Amino acid sequence: MSKPKGFEKPAGVRDYLPRAVTKLRKIENDVLHCMSRWGYRQMITPTLEYYDTVGVASSTSDQKLYKLLNNRGQALVLRSEMTAPVARVVSSLLKDEPLPLRLSYHANVFRAIEEEAGREAEFFQTGVELVGDDSAEADAEVVALAIASLQAAGVKSFKIAMGHVGFLNGLFQEAVPGLPEAQEELKGHLLGRDYVAFRETLRQLALPEAQKQELDGLLRLRGGKEICGQALELSSHPLARTSIDHLCKVWEVLVSYGVSQHVLIDLTMIGDFSYYTGMTFEGYAEELGFPVCSGGRYDNLLQQFGRAVPSTGFSLKTNRILDGVAGTPESEELPILVQYDALRRGEGLQEASRLRAEGHAVVTRLATGPEELQTVKRLDPETVESAGAQYRKIYTFVSFVSEHS
Amino acid sequence: MSKPKGFEKPAGVRDYLPRAVTKLRKIENDVLHCMSRWGYRQMITPTLEYYDTVGVASSTSDQKLYKLLNNRGQALVLRSEMTAPVARVVSSLLKDEPLPLRLSYHANVFRAIEEEAGREAEFFQTGVELVGDDSAEADAEVVALAIASLQAAGVKSFKIAMGHVGFLNGLFQEAVPGLPEAQEELKGHLLGRDYVAFRETLRQLALPEAQKQELDGLLRLRGGKEICGQALELSSHPLARTSIDHLCKVWEVLVSYGVSQHVLIDLTMIGDFSYYTGMTFEGYAEELGFPVCSGGRYDNLLQQFGRAVPSTGFSLKTNRILDGVAGTPESEELPILVQYDALRRGEGLQEASRLRAEGHAVVTRLATGPEELQTVKRLDPETVESAGAQYRKIYTFVSFVSEHS
Repeated sequence: MSKPKGFEKPAGVRDYLPRAVTKLRKIENDVLHCMSRWGYRQMITPTLEYYDTVGVASSTSDQKLYKLLNNRGQALVLRSEMTAPVARVVSSLLKDEPLPLRLSYHANVFRAIEEEAGREAEFFQTGVELVGDDSAEADAEVVALAIASLQAAGVKSFKIAMGHVGFLNGLFQEAVPGLPEAQEELKGHLLGRDYVAFRETLRQLALPEAQKQELDGLLRLRGGKEICGQALELSSHPLARTSIDHLCKVWEVLVSYGVSQHVLIDLTMIGDFSYYTGMTFEGYAEELGFPVCSGGRYDNLLQQFGRAVPSTGFSLKTNRILDGVAGTPESEELPILVQYDALRRGEGLQEASRLRAEGHAVVTRLATGPEELQTVKRLDPETVESAGAQYRKIYTFVSFVSEHS
Repeated sequence: MSKPKGFEKPAGVRDYLPRAVTKLRKIENDVLHCMSRWGYRQMITPTLEYYDTVGVASSTSDQKLYKLLNNRGQALVLRSEMTAPVARVVSSLLKDEPLPLRLSYHANVFRAIEEEAGREAEFFQTGVELVGDDSAEADAEVVALAIASLQAAGVKSFKIAMGHVGFLNGLFQEAVPGLPEAQEELKGHLLGRDYVAFRETLRQLALPEAQKQELDGLLRLRGGKEICGQALELSSHPLARTSIDHLCKVWEVLVSYGVSQHVLIDLTMIGDFSYYTGMTFEGYAEELGFPVCSGGRYDNLLQQFGRAVPSTGFSLKTNRILDGVAGTPESEELPILVQYDALRRGEGLQEASRLRAEGHAVVTRLATGPEELQTVKRLDPETVESAGAQYRKIYTFVSFVSEHS
């Protein structure tokens, strides 16, 4: 294999230039600030975790985990998501803290990628975990906070699709009892949103035609609260019915929050982590073709770390949102230039210091002769990434000529 | 080897609980804001880089690099510092940008650790690179910005020790010519601040006693500008003399900045990266026993990535500073609790929303009976990490009882 060239970086990772970073940092700060106003307090966990603990609990498929060995020969992973690391901390450092715990994070996470184009090997997540509360109230809180977070991030138009893993589990256990493989296959197609394959699997099952029709009707169970009623007709399985009852309660609380217009019940929703046990949801922005947030309830994850408590949460895909929201106009970010010669350096640097104290961005520059003096230039903000060559204003402190422009 | 327990994390990495994160984020934001007021614009580069490019250029010793393979079998590293990744971007995405470029970053970096206790395998750096300017003015700018950044971070009392790699190279080339191993050994002892070993190596060299005395005198070359004069007496080597001239100029500019009282010339200073070619510096805080920032000039690094331009920069060891600065008193971070029953939920959630819009941190809670109502509690902030069980104020919206406390 040939060596990479000096300027190359690995597939699936990204450099963020200043204009993008300004936007990304603003989204990150605004969202974390929103979460803190909802009482969520921020944590930072390490990038490296043990494969045998967080790596396994993360429910990221093995070939998608970045693995490495430390100097002791122990298998480590780069974290693939934040829920399992937070669960580890809740079960260790925070094990004596009173519940419920409201925790937030902003972190880069990693997924080893196949050769597919456009897949990200490293990306940013900003999210929360509400630990130690199994109520519909708690599920509604994280959905309402996801909505508030998307708004804080500047996403103008979006929908939250909300479902329940328990409903699907109950429904399939009732419809194809004793056939866990068929159940998993049907769920897999729903996860992949491959409805053609779902119908094909259904067609091949040895079921009465009427029941196939009913299961096929699942695909139409998307809408407002009326969907709950229709779902109850589909299944008499206790797990399915309890799940729908819970979802109805979540909806009611979302109405009290005044945000149900952003929410759609979608009973084909599974959620992308196998540790989800209850309500799951995904957020779709109108401007973007992929989910910008996802979350759900995971009541069995924490017991893997030694503290068996129910939890719910979500994360925003922060860098995906970046492409869908407007940034500050470049011109507002241009710095002031203070230029000076060696004789008037002290004066020039003092003025720069004064302007910085007032909050301005100031670049300073020594000019050794009149030909080195800069003038105000306006370059095309779309083609120039650095503000290094253009200024909002120029202050000049030189003995050979002195002017403000 | 036994498997790690569920709650364990790898050696050398750290969890940051909310109180520490609040401080860390404040330091990070204040420092980045300071850097932006000096015209430095922020970049983000990936955690994973090619071993053959950034890994090698980073001049981190091979056994301290975390290495792994991607799915294509290519050798990757977790970045061990940020200067080489920034150099890669300056030579690729930013290769047509006008110079000088002022870039900043905040990033986690990684060093595989030996068994020594207390070593960090992952830590945070906040820093800048000033690319494309070889002047003393540029070196002084980054030292002055390091001082401004330490002040922005809340470090009260600190000293910057400043030296020059070129002076030491010239001095040793003159003193022990043709003995590169002896030169490297002497420099190695200075880097490790092991002056006993330095004197021992010196003693064993076949040099005239007077010259040994002179070289030993190097260890006393620490102080203000007068040190430059004394250094010129030590060596007539052209590289050593040019280096001292440059350092004198840097000092003069620092006087113009009005910050020379924070700076100490220390000609035993080498800098911890082998890519340094000129001025190097380290910052020491009075409260802390280790350097809190380090930097220097690296004029040959960028040519490894295809763009041969001189550069200078520094980074703050952000998480080390954390332990040395005061945080916000815990009581100011306590949230308001809004509690309600199912009947008055809408009212309660609306009040929570109003308080959040005013900037308050608000936690909400459903109470199903009078026995579930919370009252204001004050727990010891030193023993309780979560604010989940204590509140600054409580608003109650229930039909069975209604009061504000």
